[in-house]
Amino acid sequence: MSFLIKATYSLRNSYKPGLRCLSTGQYNHTLLSNNNQQHKQQYRYASGNAKGAKNQTAVYTLFTLGGITLGYLFFDNLENLKKVAAQANKNNVKTATTQIKEQNSNKNDVSDDGDDAYKKWHSTERKDLPTFKLEDVQKHNTLEKGIWVTYGIGVYDITDFIPKHPGSDKIMLGAGSAIDPFWAIYQQHNNKEILSLLETYRIGNISPEDEVSTDDMGSPWAMEPKRHPLLKPASERPFNAEPPLTILAENFYTPNEFFYVRNHLPVPVIDVKTYELEVEIETDKAGAKSTQKALSFEDIKALPKHSVTAAIMCGGNRRSEMTEVKSVKGLSWGAGAVGNAKWSGARLRDVLLAMGVQPNENLHVILEGADLDPTSNPYGASIPLSKALDERGDVILAYEMNDKPLNRDHGFPIRVIVPGTVGARNVKWLTRIVVADHESNSHWQQNDYKGFSPSTDWDTVDFTKSPAIQAMPVTSAICTPLPGEKVKVSADGFVEVRGYAWSGGGRRIVRVDLTADKGKSWHVATLEQENEPDGRHYGWSLWTARIPVDTKLKGEEVEIWSKAVDSAYNVQPETFANIWNLRGVLSNAYHRVKILLN
Amino acid sequence: MSFLIKATYSLRNSYKPGLRCLSTGQYNHTLLSNNNQQHKQQYRYASGNAKGAKNQTAVYTLFTLGGITLGYLFFDNLENLKKVAAQANKNNVKTATTQIKEQNSNKNDVSDDGDDAYKKWHSTERKDLPTFKLEDVQKHNTLEKGIWVTYGIGVYDITDFIPKHPGSDKIMLGAGSAIDPFWAIYQQHNNKEILSLLETYRIGNISPEDEVSTDDMGSPWAMEPKRHPLLKPASERPFNAEPPLTILAENFYTPNEFFYVRNHLPVPVIDVKTYELEVEIETDKAGAKSTQKALSFEDIKALPKHSVTAAIMCGGNRRSEMTEVKSVKGLSWGAGAVGNAKWSGARLRDVLLAMGVQPNENLHVILEGADLDPTSNPYGASIPLSKALDERGDVILAYEMNDKPLNRDHGFPIRVIVPGTVGARNVKWLTRIVVADHESNSHWQQNDYKGFSPSTDWDTVDFTKSPAIQAMPVTSAICTPLPGEKVKVSADGFVEVRGYAWSGGGRRIVRVDLTADKGKSWHVATLEQENEPDGRHYGWSLWTARIPVDTKLKGEEVEIWSKAVDSAYNVQPETFANIWNLRGVLSNAYHRVKILLN
Repeated sequence: MSFLIKATYSLRNSYKPGLRCLSTGQYNHTLLSNNNQQHKQQYRYASGNAKGAKNQTAVYTLFTLGGITLGYLFFDNLENLKKVAAQANKNNVKTATTQIKEQNSNKNDVSDDGDDAYKKWHSTERKDLPTFKLEDVQKHNTLEKGIWVTYGIGVYDITDFIPKHPGSDKIMLGAGSAIDPFWAIYQQHNNKEILSLLETYRIGNISPEDEVSTDDMGSPWAMEPKRHPLLKPASERPFNAEPPLTILAENFYTPNEFFYVRNHLPVPVIDVKTYELEVEIETDKAGAKSTQKALSFEDIKALPKHSVTAAIMCGGNRRSEMTEVKSVKGLSWGAGAVGNAKWSGARLRDVLLAMGVQPNENLHVILEGADLDPTSNPYGASIPLSKALDERGDVILAYEMNDKPLNRDHGFPIRVIVPGTVGARNVKWLTRIVVADHESNSHWQQNDYKGFSPSTDWDTVDFTKSPAIQAMPVTSAICTPLPGEKVKVSADGFVEVRGYAWSGGGRRIVRVDLTADKGKSWHVATLEQENEPDGRHYGWSLWTARIPVDTKLKGEEVEIWSKAVDSAYNVQPETFANIWNLRGVLSNAYHRVKILLN
Repeated sequence: MSFLIKATYSLRNSYKPGLRCLSTGQYNHTLLSNNNQQHKQQYRYASGNAKGAKNQTAVYTLFTLGGITLGYLFFDNLENLKKVAAQANKNNVKTATTQIKEQNSNKNDVSDDGDDAYKKWHSTERKDLPTFKLEDVQKHNTLEKGIWVTYGIGVYDITDFIPKHPGSDKIMLGAGSAIDPFWAIYQQHNNKEILSLLETYRIGNISPEDEVSTDDMGSPWAMEPKRHPLLKPASERPFNAEPPLTILAENFYTPNEFFYVRNHLPVPVIDVKTYELEVEIETDKAGAKSTQKALSFEDIKALPKHSVTAAIMCGGNRRSEMTEVKSVKGLSWGAGAVGNAKWSGARLRDVLLAMGVQPNENLHVILEGADLDPTSNPYGASIPLSKALDERGDVILAYEMNDKPLNRDHGFPIRVIVPGTVGARNVKWLTRIVVADHESNSHWQQNDYKGFSPSTDWDTVDFTKSPAIQAMPVTSAICTPLPGEKVKVSADGFVEVRGYAWSGGGRRIVRVDLTADKGKSWHVATLEQENEPDGRHYGWSLWTARIPVDTKLKGEEVEIWSKAVDSAYNVQPETFANIWNLRGVLSNAYHRVKILLN
């Protein structure tokens, strides 16, 4: 088992091209198996049609969601789980494990022990509980048989945790696996609440010969790049951070070191000399002449170079404002999860057209990165083929950001830029492109980055019912002054306000309106933007407005609102209450900032 | 003068192709001149760079705006005009005409005379006023010299009316002209308020030999088509009407006879045998091989036939709801100024590509109809060349609507369908296409169908500052139940609600949310829509929702709200207050309908 884990991490820590067997369209690799005894598994990448792949998705979904939100899941479900347990007691259906759980909940009251005691529970033998062999654990890999996992030397039955999980019909835990390697990546689990919750599921100890030593793993985070100290992290591992808003509004082209970073997994280490981008035309509906191609970095640089100014925005930008209505699952982004840059690279359409790909409204382009999760599944997303082939779509395989080579946090050596489209589709460390008759099956395409009605909750959500976000809606934000700032009123009674505005799909911002009196009067901002035509206007607009204020209000609080209008005359919605969604994405209501007049 | 008017109307009543001198790119025609003595004028069509053309635009702007809104203008400006007159008195600056105005306002108090007396004022000699010759009138054609017009035998100095006119910097009246022919078309002027207001500007009588006889004109409205009696007119002349909402929601394809009608001018009579569509490539930036082409109806039918389902929506749809916030200028449309049809015809791109037109982001396609205003200027609009050339743009020269030939109200024999784009660009009775390096100079492209900030009024508006509406924003409307309707609550406590939703730019509707408790709970509607891909989804979506209501509220009023979300996750704004604009266009806030539970 230790060996397997090592193999996985070596894949992650140092990207090795050529592992994939392209000639068959199959991918044979070593992974943390969730099928008994089977440590090597062959499955079709991203197609999800093999039984093994289905189980694979299950592990991945649980723990990847964990990577983003599992901490929240645990918190939110704690009460539910207690109810489930209470119900089980009520019904007097006491299995061996539910009896043990009762002992656990007696024993493991967090407040009973020393402050740091919880950190050692999973590495401490529980003499009150039985000892299991790894093969016992591995047998519990279905909901029917129960879902067992190990962590440290603890054995846990987490069956009760599964039903409340979003997309629960598809979820299957990596039964019989050690979760240590996952949690080594998703380090947010290493806190009191989650470790305490885990211990309530403890049913035994693993026999010493089957113990997983985390010392064998090394750290997947050891090779993270250095970041600018002004970037404010929303999470450290994976690294997600935004710049101060004041810096954003000062630069039409966001300086690379201040560009927000949104990583889903550890940053891969890629040697540009051996880097290879695989292109596969998986479906004959594309009518392509050739179905396989491998491009080196030099091959890509040899293609005609195309530049496009495009803002990239995280689907969760401004989530923290939506959270004020009601909590959501996701990183608590401010308004800085956006940046604007000039990107340069080869056109994706040139690559596809050279292979003879024909327009087809029903096809998709799947994009995969070199950043791998613990099961060696890459980060993945997809866009419609029509966007990729559209000359005005300006989709590029970028190797430059503001005329400098991409840095590691932004996808070195190649990332795809999909202008006008949510950040999540702008896949970094791009290593594989597949033209297929279906979207990416990745978690991020299927079960994340989608919008829902405000009344949809985690009990009722069905991720198949909403489309994956592609083009983003119109939005704006006030960058200066900051909330609570004391703002000098000019002699003639004005305050100056600055910010950004952007809309997806290439729609130009045509107006930004500001009010300091809750909409009684609106003041039109002056825009700084490129002179690109509508439908192809992918850069953001910076704006400045001088808003008249009542000088009698000096010393008092005033709330400034901004709303932008795009070229389709779509306008931001007024409040978050009516656009609230459980993932906290698409957070584009009016931006409201309270300031103090001085 | 009589002859001229006759000529103009013969142009309008019976469309005669071939009058335009294409070989020079110039257009020589007879028109009601506003330049003294000059009854024939040559100007470059739609280019507006000749001095004559500028004056032409002036006449046209005033009276065309009149065609849509002049009635409202008069109402709105009545108070302002009184103020202007009062101010003039105050300043003791009494010209001969202001003295006369005082007499007028004494004499012409509407309430003093018999009910129908106002109808005869302009055909009654005012013995208290002097008599003028036509050449006297014609000299008053600038703001400096004063703006005089005649109507019937009355001579009027309407100089004071000009300054408050929108776009006043560009406006110049057709001084020295009879307004009779304009008002014969825009018959909404023939009411008490407007005729009374006009009489306040009376300064004299026209000498009998210069009198304009309206008997010479015939009626431009004599050849209007028959309409379905259920179409509810917003104005009769030009004919503008919408169907009952209940019919809209019942048919995915709106029956042709119930499709809303939005005419800007009288419906032209076109003989399909002599019909000709002129195509001109005006700019060499298009890189075209040929610059002139004339297509007969049969030529167009011989091109590959393409069908597209597209909703067409008036820019002023739902204006009546915006008016509730504050009055606007425009026809008072309900939510029925929209329809959905299958349109068939030839692709515009096929025509342009055959002429060798190359993509160019800076070019436009100007579209002109056979419907002419009194100066023989056609209805006109333009779209970006990129939309016209885009295979996914689906712009067609349509000759069929729901598999039947276009009827006269909808553009027989050819109208352009610009899917996803505001109705105003879907030019009917299409007779001329020009590829140019500028937008159409028509009133409807330049000074109408644009959005502004809620704080922009007719004193501050600058139409050059906003882009012409092309793609429309996301919207929805509740079609049943109707406002105030008693609605049966089902045994299980639900009411059924139906309506439509649509977004411009080919964006698919992805969700419609309904609430009966002001947003506390939202209910997702079931959609009926075509399975077209996003970005090319031009048809509307019909929707049905069952909303739970508190049965304790039986007998009470409940307000239902609808909001739609499109594929870019743009959502309708909540209220009209913050999207209000002086033209009352883009009226896409939540639709709110109060019903009585039964």
